[in-house]
Amino acid sequence: MTDIKQQSLELHAKLKGKIRIQATCEVETKEDLTLIYSPGVGAVSEAIAADPSKVDELTWRKNAVAIFSDGSAVLGLGDIGPLAVLPVLEGKCAIFKRFSNIDAVPILLNTKDVDAIVETIVNVAPSFGAIQLEDISAPRCFEIERRLMERLDMPVMHDDQHGTAIVILAGLINALKVVKKELSDIRVVMNGAGAAGIAAARLLDAAGVQNVIMCDRQGAIYMGREGLNEEKIMAATFTNLDQVKGSLADVAKGADVLIGVSAAGAFTPAIVKSMAKDPIVFALANPVPEILPEVAKTAGVAVLATGRSDFANQVNNALCYPGLFRGMLDTGVKQVTVEIKLKAAEAIAAAVPEPTAEKIIPSIFDPGLHELVAKNVV
Amino acid sequence: MTDIKQQSLELHAKLKGKIRIQATCEVETKEDLTLIYSPGVGAVSEAIAADPSKVDELTWRKNAVAIFSDGSAVLGLGDIGPLAVLPVLEGKCAIFKRFSNIDAVPILLNTKDVDAIVETIVNVAPSFGAIQLEDISAPRCFEIERRLMERLDMPVMHDDQHGTAIVILAGLINALKVVKKELSDIRVVMNGAGAAGIAAARLLDAAGVQNVIMCDRQGAIYMGREGLNEEKIMAATFTNLDQVKGSLADVAKGADVLIGVSAAGAFTPAIVKSMAKDPIVFALANPVPEILPEVAKTAGVAVLATGRSDFANQVNNALCYPGLFRGMLDTGVKQVTVEIKLKAAEAIAAAVPEPTAEKIIPSIFDPGLHELVAKNVV
Repeated sequence: MTDIKQQSLELHAKLKGKIRIQATCEVETKEDLTLIYSPGVGAVSEAIAADPSKVDELTWRKNAVAIFSDGSAVLGLGDIGPLAVLPVLEGKCAIFKRFSNIDAVPILLNTKDVDAIVETIVNVAPSFGAIQLEDISAPRCFEIERRLMERLDMPVMHDDQHGTAIVILAGLINALKVVKKELSDIRVVMNGAGAAGIAAARLLDAAGVQNVIMCDRQGAIYMGREGLNEEKIMAATFTNLDQVKGSLADVAKGADVLIGVSAAGAFTPAIVKSMAKDPIVFALANPVPEILPEVAKTAGVAVLATGRSDFANQVNNALCYPGLFRGMLDTGVKQVTVEIKLKAAEAIAAAVPEPTAEKIIPSIFDPGLHELVAKNVV
Repeated sequence: MTDIKQQSLELHAKLKGKIRIQATCEVETKEDLTLIYSPGVGAVSEAIAADPSKVDELTWRKNAVAIFSDGSAVLGLGDIGPLAVLPVLEGKCAIFKRFSNIDAVPILLNTKDVDAIVETIVNVAPSFGAIQLEDISAPRCFEIERRLMERLDMPVMHDDQHGTAIVILAGLINALKVVKKELSDIRVVMNGAGAAGIAAARLLDAAGVQNVIMCDRQGAIYMGREGLNEEKIMAATFTNLDQVKGSLADVAKGADVLIGVSAAGAFTPAIVKSMAKDPIVFALANPVPEILPEVAKTAGVAVLATGRSDFANQVNNALCYPGLFRGMLDTGVKQVTVEIKLKAAEAIAAAVPEPTAEKIIPSIFDPGLHELVAKNVV
């Protein structure tokens, strides 16, 4: 790990930015300038002024996605501020480019105020074909996304919520094939009620999972529990309908699926052993998962997924967003609906035609994956 | 002209954007991903969190310039809105890339409110190393630029004002060599008291021109004239100190230099003929200048400059901004001072070692021009 850190620092120091702007036009003669700039460009501006929809035929806008972050919830690092999140955003931009030829621009937000963030993004939104929110802490991320979706006529998606949720659902669809269970029959315990946990619970619900229990540090979340924030109250309206109370260890007993978007080591062997037959465990804490593969194996886990690229079955948002945004941009979708998210998850699952315990989730490099997602979402 | 318009439309329809994002890093293996994204990028984020100045060594920020516009004062087209200005901004981005390898990003402002524009730009400013404002109408452009310069610790420049002013001064320095007059001796009449006119008058004053008279549609501007806006009152504090009154035709009599940032045909042969010996005329209205070259020649103009690429001596902001911003980014300058603007003008003038009436201004393609400007400004 230290080695990777050192190598990464050296690579970044060498590159001085993982992205660049590239001109697509020749700028070699006076004639070139008259076409790409004044006076020729005036005709292009006039054409767009007369018919604003032409902006998508005559500029880069339709292929341009802005990735906004205030750096308040970065990887395992927490609130490190906007400047420090820039290398993460640049990484996503490079991934967007490589896997779906999208021109993504990283934009840092120098404020944590919800109103200011919403107004700022609304004010610059016409520059882009879609907007991704990244590494913005809960509960602000919920309100920011909701208000932007109301205000803007273009796809807006907080990737930490929905990208994670989509790939979790994709992995779960295939894990259930491996253990021969059905979505509608299983009981899922979700440990972690932050942005990703709540979004995943919501998507599992939409996909047909009947029984999800969410846990936070106080244990099971149920309607009427004291001290719930607005989002957890919302979650309690469609999860844990039997109002089960107790700790994670209590509610995990007999569960078919245990999903952690929580913290290193949260899943002890005892918890995993108390689950139903053929337990499915998604231990997504990064960099150290809720349970390590070796421990999980000994404890009898049938299918394990983590967030780590060096273990099997990596739940990685990058499996989703390049294709998802490609599809939405190409077809002019204006909202990231639940249907679109379900279709993206189905496409990612379908990219592994014969899932096994060691491969429920495709690799980001699998040929055709991103095209499949792009085609499927619309 | 119709031909250029048609060709330009066709080129833009083919390119679908004059700029793209390009990844500088390999994204071909799992190992690549661990270095450019999680987990390796965590070390880069931590390094920046610990020492924010490292952002300029480890990301693209130091080389990234945002070009903001609300599309309220575009070329000769006026207020055509943000979407329609995008092809203009993309053209500037392509020029930035070609001539000084700067990564410029076009950002459209979906508001004309001064407070909202200032707050929006402040909120996203950390993403960039410098900010250019473009095609924002007067008088809002003055206040927006002033407030951003106060709030931000990075170069902020409204190119329509200062880029134009710098190239006007550069051209004037060389035109005076051609007619063997001195900056300190001349009388200049500036027709047009918008953003560019006022900025040019201010820079000429700073360069040592003692006598500038500004005219708007009501004629000469002087302290105490009724109905002056705040910027014109400011201009009256350092121009027309003799409080000369009258029309453009009145005050142009005996002037050495006549600069138009006004409208087609504003300079009649009679006006030009009434000027001092060897008149210098900058007729910068676009696309049709205040006086056409043939008419100017017949009327006895010694040196003519226009804004047109198909005539000699094109006053073109693109002579300035690539090198100016390159120099400022490379040396970490925090403000675009008057000294920097004077030095940029001197560098552009010096790029024509032996000026003639037909060549007082370099070509944007002249080898070494932009490097000379970059070196000179700091």
